[in-house]
Amino acid sequence: MDETTPRDGADSLAFDVFSRQCPSRGTLEHVTGRWGSLTLTALYKTGARFNELRRRVDGVSEKMLSQTLHALERDGLVLREAQPTNPPRVDYELTPLGREVADRLLGLIQLVESRMSEVLDARSRYDEAREVTL
Amino acid sequence: MDETTPRDGADSLAFDVFSRQCPSRGTLEHVTGRWGSLTLTALYKTGARFNELRRRVDGVSEKMLSQTLHALERDGLVLREAQPTNPPRVDYELTPLGREVADRLLGLIQLVESRMSEVLDARSRYDEAREVTL
Repeated sequence: MDETTPRDGADSLAFDVFSRQCPSRGTLEHVTGRWGSLTLTALYKTGARFNELRRRVDGVSEKMLSQTLHALERDGLVLREAQPTNPPRVDYELTPLGREVADRLLGLIQLVESRMSEVLDARSRYDEAREVTL
Repeated sequence: MDETTPRDGADSLAFDVFSRQCPSRGTLEHVTGRWGSLTLTALYKTGARFNELRRRVDGVSEKMLSQTLHALERDGLVLREAQPTNPPRVDYELTPLGREVADRLLGLIQLVESRMSEVLDARSRYDEAREVTL
């Protein structure tokens, strides 16, 4: 389906990430993108201010974190709350839907982390096989 | 941890995607990247040849699918089997670990697809609020 097709909330089959024009593909990219998955899961335990979040997501630039947060906020996954303080303070936290997404991502991350020795063994075998044939 | 630290397979806590130097971050990026997640889940039901896989993952270029498959094969998530036929035929299928990863990704994709009406509502609210303040 394309972005202009009327949508029925009850009909989840109408959305298909395998179709390049479906808006669900964009949302999948926001939540799985280079920084999206880390930003969502970094907010899982507690909300955070921008700089705290930047420390949690090691290696993200200010610009990339800002873009990532905007996309996640627009998709209704992250809530941005500006506190009426002086200087102004902005807190980020997950929405209920963002929490469900982060929950799935955490399961994926834990699986990857727990099986990295298998992955590294596979990489060694792959690289050795290529050395032999080159 | 960095790439050169000796690793103990039993100690999954040694790997941390939040650390930019941990090799698990690269693997997370392969499985969640723009094409990695779609390629893994497209292989979930049955293996496929390259061109069949390219049709399933709507919009992927030959070059990107090839790069994606190489990274997933090197990480031990996808098995590439060259059949001794003439012309040669190459089949791709998930390894047991690739299957576990794809299983988590499918859960995430199904969640995203089933909640897209909420996401689209959030986008409309976000864009309207910005129009008011601009």
